Amino acid sequence: MHSFTDLAKSFEDRFSASLPFPDAPGTLYDPCRYFMALGGKRIRPVLCLMANQLFDEISNDAWHAAMGIELLHNYTLIHDDIMDKAPLRRGQPTLHDKYGLTAGILCGDVMCIYAYSELGKITKAMPQVIQLFSKTAIEICEGQQLDMDFERRSNVSIDEYIHMITLKTSVLLACSLKMGAMVSGAFGDNANKLYAFGKNMGIAFQLQDDYLDAFGDTDKLGKQNGGDIKANKKTYLLIKALENADTAQRRSIEELLHGGTDTKVQEMLSLYTQTGADIQCREAVAHYSTLAFNCLDEVAIPSKRKEPLFELADYLLMRDK
Amino acid sequence: MHSFTDLAKSFEDRFSASLPFPDAPGTLYDPCRYFMALGGKRIRPVLCLMANQLFDEISNDAWHAAMGIELLHNYTLIHDDIMDKAPLRRGQPTLHDKYGLTAGILCGDVMCIYAYSELGKITKAMPQVIQLFSKTAIEICEGQQLDMDFERRSNVSIDEYIHMITLKTSVLLACSLKMGAMVSGAFGDNANKLYAFGKNMGIAFQLQDDYLDAFGDTDKLGKQNGGDIKANKKTYLLIKALENADTAQRRSIEELLHGGTDTKVQEMLSLYTQTGADIQCREAVAHYSTLAFNCLDEVAIPSKRKEPLFELADYLLMRDK
Repeated sequence: MHSFTDLAKSFEDRFSASLPFPDAPGTLYDPCRYFMALGGKRIRPVLCLMANQLFDEISNDAWHAAMGIELLHNYTLIHDDIMDKAPLRRGQPTLHDKYGLTAGILCGDVMCIYAYSELGKITKAMPQVIQLFSKTAIEICEGQQLDMDFERRSNVSIDEYIHMITLKTSVLLACSLKMGAMVSGAFGDNANKLYAFGKNMGIAFQLQDDYLDAFGDTDKLGKQNGGDIKANKKTYLLIKALENADTAQRRSIEELLHGGTDTKVQEMLSLYTQTGADIQCREAVAHYSTLAFNCLDEVAIPSKRKEPLFELADYLLMRDK
Repeated sequence: MHSFTDLAKSFEDRFSASLPFPDAPGTLYDPCRYFMALGGKRIRPVLCLMANQLFDEISNDAWHAAMGIELLHNYTLIHDDIMDKAPLRRGQPTLHDKYGLTAGILCGDVMCIYAYSELGKITKAMPQVIQLFSKTAIEICEGQQLDMDFERRSNVSIDEYIHMITLKTSVLLACSLKMGAMVSGAFGDNANKLYAFGKNMGIAFQLQDDYLDAFGDTDKLGKQNGGDIKANKKTYLLIKALENADTAQRRSIEELLHGGTDTKVQEMLSLYTQTGADIQCREAVAHYSTLAFNCLDEVAIPSKRKEPLFELADYLLMRDK
């Protein structure tokens, strides 16, 4: 069984050596190459490969599926960056910031189509793969739309928030795993358990991200705390704090949201703690992590073969920290 | 054999009754429904159905292909309107103008994915269909990029222009026809001849559009002449006029491009005539029309069955006018 590190390296080598973009027009494909070279952990394609090797040697179909998944993921990042007006991605200028709006739209578009073009090379279970991939991509668009909608609403509930991050983030992890299974011929319980594992892991990961942005160890994260607080981003912590707050606490939170003093981050963190939102966020991470690991336990494959997936989930969900 | 009018009506009924969009989130799907309801002639899906009925009764696969094609076409229009900063489409506000940039990007995105989702329902020749459709969609993106690039260049050649309009406009007509053939099991010469017919017809149609925008009968067109001239759009006429112009004429054209007096349209039309660009444009329309009709002649199907396609091509290329 190949480890995450091995597979991530193999994928990176293969991916960067065989990007599907031609040279011309350079105004279209140079920005695409720029963006792909920004890197990333390639977690989604590796999940696909890992799920595939549960059942057999990693097949060519799985490589095509993995490529398609990574292209789709990067396409959504490019368009999200436009909508979020984000200047930086992985410490470098975002595609639209460097090359303009037209390139931002068109490069995303063409990358989505290249993703499907990769899936068009799959020899096994293509209809099922296309349907799952399309369903997932639609959900990602819906999740992004909900995220945008929530920015303008003050009454988002925890359930709505979990639904949004499920669509925006988790279903692609789930889909990656299930596609890896499907192209090996696995469609039943095992494929569905892998999907549920990925979905719950994705939710846990996003909630953990919310927590770490506020309370994480800045040395480990390599960035300052409180980015979400400064940006008034609706996170699990903020929604839960508003839900739990008494009248005075609620007024304080709303003043911080509208005002923004030098001590905004400190004061908000203090309110998260006072309202118990911090503890509940950690509990929610633990809850979804447990669901995820239970699903992986239930996949009817010898434990030995599942070790790389457990390791990756441990790493993502920092169970050892 | 069903005529264009019959098929356009059947498609419209079926399409508007079975749009694949769910209700929620309304912020995503209401704009999609708005845009689809703006209408259009539905030429591309009908070409697909017409090609399909050359070989057999129109199949469910052909309907799915036709739906996918129309969704793809509308997706490209939505994104093009953003890039072109267009306020109006079919006399109504463009999607991004009415609902904002985020909706413009995301509705286009999700429509592209729904297009593939339709193709995922095809039972015959799916790999070939996905590959052709993806190749075509990639070419459309490339064509749009070239169109954008050309706006900033003053030395575009006729060959480059033809290449651009081929990618941006013609290949989708060609693909629509070929997909209709493929899902009926036709892959060989007939499918390729239909593709070539659509490609040449598309080029002829676009060149005719350039001509009519300048010299067309305003009553028939329902709009004023000279929109392209006012917008300094690089058309076949402008490129050819610059190519043919003597020094004085070239200076006049460039002054008009940089200046823009009240009589700009009249003066430019006069220069198109003086340089012979108008006649050469009409000749080019005739040239590509002839190529198109020859390709259709060569499709090895009884002429009777090809009548609806000939009629549609006549209508589009105004051979009777």
